[in-house]
Amino acid sequence: MYVRNCWYVAAWSHEIGPEALFARTILNEPILLMRLASGEVVALDDRCCHRGAPLSIGRREGDCVRCMYHGLRYDATGACVEIPGQAQVPRHMRVRRYPVVEQNRWVFVWMGDPEKADPALLPDNRANDDPRVEYLPEYMHYAVNYLWIADNLMDFSHLSFVHEKTLGGSTAIAQSKPEYVELPRGLRVIRRVRDVPCAPYHRTFGDFPGNVDRWFHYDFVLPGILLMHSGLKPPGRGWDDFEGALHMRSCQALTPETDRSTHYFFMQGQEFAPGNHEVTRSIRDSVVTAFEEDRAMICAQVALMERAPMKMMPIHADAGLNRFRALVGRMADAEAAAATG
Amino acid sequence: MYVRNCWYVAAWSHEIGPEALFARTILNEPILLMRLASGEVVALDDRCCHRGAPLSIGRREGDCVRCMYHGLRYDATGACVEIPGQAQVPRHMRVRRYPVVEQNRWVFVWMGDPEKADPALLPDNRANDDPRVEYLPEYMHYAVNYLWIADNLMDFSHLSFVHEKTLGGSTAIAQSKPEYVELPRGLRVIRRVRDVPCAPYHRTFGDFPGNVDRWFHYDFVLPGILLMHSGLKPPGRGWDDFEGALHMRSCQALTPETDRSTHYFFMQGQEFAPGNHEVTRSIRDSVVTAFEEDRAMICAQVALMERAPMKMMPIHADAGLNRFRALVGRMADAEAAAATG
Amino acid sequence: MYVRNCWYVAAWSHEIGPEALFARTILNEPILLMRLASGEVVALDDRCCHRGAPLSIGRREGDCVRCMYHGLRYDATGACVEIPGQAQVPRHMRVRRYPVVEQNRWVFVWMGDPEKADPALLPDNRANDDPRVEYLPEYMHYAVNYLWIADNLMDFSHLSFVHEKTLGGSTAIAQSKPEYVELPRGLRVIRRVRDVPCAPYHRTFGDFPGNVDRWFHYDFVLPGILLMHSGLKPPGRGWDDFEGALHMRSCQALTPETDRSTHYFFMQGQEFAPGNHEVTRSIRDSVVTAFEEDRAMICAQVALMERAPMKMMPIHADAGLNRFRALVGRMADAEAAAATG
Repeated sequence: MYVRNCWYVAAWSHEIGPEALFARTILNEPILLMRLASGEVVALDDRCCHRGAPLSIGRREGDCVRCMYHGLRYDATGACVEIPGQAQVPRHMRVRRYPVVEQNRWVFVWMGDPEKADPALLPDNRANDDPRVEYLPEYMHYAVNYLWIADNLMDFSHLSFVHEKTLGGSTAIAQSKPEYVELPRGLRVIRRVRDVPCAPYHRTFGDFPGNVDRWFHYDFVLPGILLMHSGLKPPGRGWDDFEGALHMRSCQALTPETDRSTHYFFMQGQEFAPGNHEVTRSIRDSVVTAFEEDRAMICAQVALMERAPMKMMPIHADAGLNRFRALVGRMADAEAAAATG
Repeated sequence: MYVRNCWYVAAWSHEIGPEALFARTILNEPILLMRLASGEVVALDDRCCHRGAPLSIGRREGDCVRCMYHGLRYDATGACVEIPGQAQVPRHMRVRRYPVVEQNRWVFVWMGDPEKADPALLPDNRANDDPRVEYLPEYMHYAVNYLWIADNLMDFSHLSFVHEKTLGGSTAIAQSKPEYVELPRGLRVIRRVRDVPCAPYHRTFGDFPGNVDRWFHYDFVLPGILLMHSGLKPPGRGWDDFEGALHMRSCQALTPETDRSTHYFFMQGQEFAPGNHEVTRSIRDSVVTAFEEDRAMICAQVALMERAPMKMMPIHADAGLNRFRALVGRMADAEAAAATG
Repeated sequence: MYVRNCWYVAAWSHEIGPEALFARTILNEPILLMRLASGEVVALDDRCCHRGAPLSIGRREGDCVRCMYHGLRYDATGACVEIPGQAQVPRHMRVRRYPVVEQNRWVFVWMGDPEKADPALLPDNRANDDPRVEYLPEYMHYAVNYLWIADNLMDFSHLSFVHEKTLGGSTAIAQSKPEYVELPRGLRVIRRVRDVPCAPYHRTFGDFPGNVDRWFHYDFVLPGILLMHSGLKPPGRGWDDFEGALHMRSCQALTPETDRSTHYFFMQGQEFAPGNHEVTRSIRDSVVTAFEEDRAMICAQVALMERAPMKMMPIHADAGLNRFRALVGRMADAEAAAATG
């Protein structure tokens, strides 16, 4: 279940070097990404239109790519411009080109109707390129459908259990009631917790003598992008009073690779210790460790559900994930209806 | 093809420690086994009823288990007794509990209608807990359907060939004619061989100057349990005259894990060398080696039959295995008819 | 898509030792090959007709083979001649025997109607046994359907790209136009290239000061056998003038193992440096390296086509492969029609 008319994160900018033929599968479609001499990134179908050999194991020739099976050469628009041993190149010899926008260190590819590609639908991932936010970029691969991971991100009650010894540290997170705000293409989730012990990972960089208040304020928008402001501060003050607070920013993107696998791009940065690489690295390490905890749990869950399917029973905490799944369902159905007529 | 209304061996008693959350799949169903403070073993569906996360990677809290995804807590009856962040726990929030009996070091689980669970249907595995029988317990995993292994156990003619260099030692075993006796839920097989050389494995613990007489006397009962008395003795005497005989006992259980894999619990003990651990260990080692010979043959057979299926051609020696397959078929059909009728 | 009434290469002669029970799957059929005391090779169904255990893990007993599961013994005609514990052996207890011809170091098996097995349909692989041709025999396994590899062999334009640094060395190969000649059961392909640099691999054994002329002259016949004469010579002379030429011979055979895997038997020998093992070995090494280049490309192509199927777009260079695929299709259809009609 996918919404196609969306910008999907295909790569971190630094993954697409100037000479690279970078291959990544998105929504089951094999895509070649390459950065032109101008710096622009283009995305082409990775299958040579002749007999399906991967262009990504071909050869860069300037802004062109040559298939190294029988030598067909393509320009950056996806048009075949040379067939060895053949004087004419028929006009239909070409590969699909996908709309691309590179914004704030993420390379986005539009997977739906190119006519509908609309930069206004890009998510606001400016924290990726904000000099006040210090972070290390990360990528993780999941061998499950992206919606299982979206479920996880839509319900932070799991921090108390999955991340008990890393990002959690208190059952109060699970006890708290989040607030939900509908967005045009997603959901805003606000979860606040008063007077809890620091999370274990806070202790690797913070210095709070006693309990803290914590907040998680995030938008989760189509196709599966989380944009968060979170942090901790001295307990008991108003939620607008950030005196003594430690602020963090996070951008995370789920991109379906196939129906059963997912690319996960993420960063969690800090704004409170400028130039302190130790803190930045420590936060990155803790988040990676925690996301590996998520992956272990989610993969165990999915393996069991595939082996022995069962009807799931909803609880109150599912409110967020149910809304997001419903949104994806409505949008995907609308696209299917539009496509058939 | 399974009979569900049966006691299946789920584990050796020692596998279920006091703190354990022990996971084992039986008949495609993921099951959590845990031993309560009282010593009683309980078997629950291993899938949290919320979203299917495995309880077996959760946390023991006394006689309860907590799912470590979103924190639901279950008591030993399978009832959910806590949902973090939610005051009420609806009554339907629970996981299935399976009837369990622990008898003579095997933990049995009833896989059918709990109303029909009947301890009178437990097999007579008392040799597992008889102080005169000295043995080391074993477990082996098979990646084939259990009936292929039952076929093997129903026809000991294979000892002459598969186990030529371990348990066999003579083609006379294959030449001999077994006697079959119908049992209410199985088949008794008696095979006796006169005046044969010792099996190669006998020579690791016995001391017979010349040939011996050998006997194998076993019941094979639903769902796939072998209970055997066997041994060797000086040649030429009546089969009731056990003067100078070496007696052995064996209990073996096949429990389908999935349609294509099987748990195999087994022991072969000796009664003739009390306190002699060398002999006990030697018999265990030989039997494990022999069962690995079986597994290699059976897995090769099944791999070939799956890759290139063919009609099998019966021989006389199939009489036992055909009767057991027919019994399983009749009982499984009767259960299916009762379920739909 | 297979033609069954064909001689398929099952093995190099040296693979079938005098004591061997050699197993090889051909067209999804598991086959046992054994060499009798007379030197004759026989091919039997590898599945014991009793319960499908592999005869190839059984035991040679002279010209017989014994299944080591329950001891059935078969003679070289495939007839069961002994069933332990059973006085009579019914006549239907037998395994299929395939017609076999051993010719020029290849063991051929006829996979179709044995009545139609016709030695006149054997390919002319005499270079395998010509004392003037010095070579080292090779085998490679492919995890793709054989037709993808036949496609590759029917279009040597790929030498310029896949083998740029080994057998190719010039885009002129891809630029050249091959000549095709229809054969009763295949296609003759003649490709000649004037005035090109030596291929990189030529430089490991040749000594040409400047450019050369190269030729590839091969028959590709059912079921997938390539018989080639090729070489290089001083440039500018008539194609019939072999003064100063280096001649090579190659025999290659594709034998489908399953629908998704292929046995590839091949040799490329030299006639120009008698007794020079260095040259012979160097050619073998280069060809193996090049065929690994092919395999990497073809497997990448097929993986992509299976994951994301697409319509292929023909180019002029496909003329040969399209003819061969059409021939296989016509013959396979005719066999299917004859079978049902």
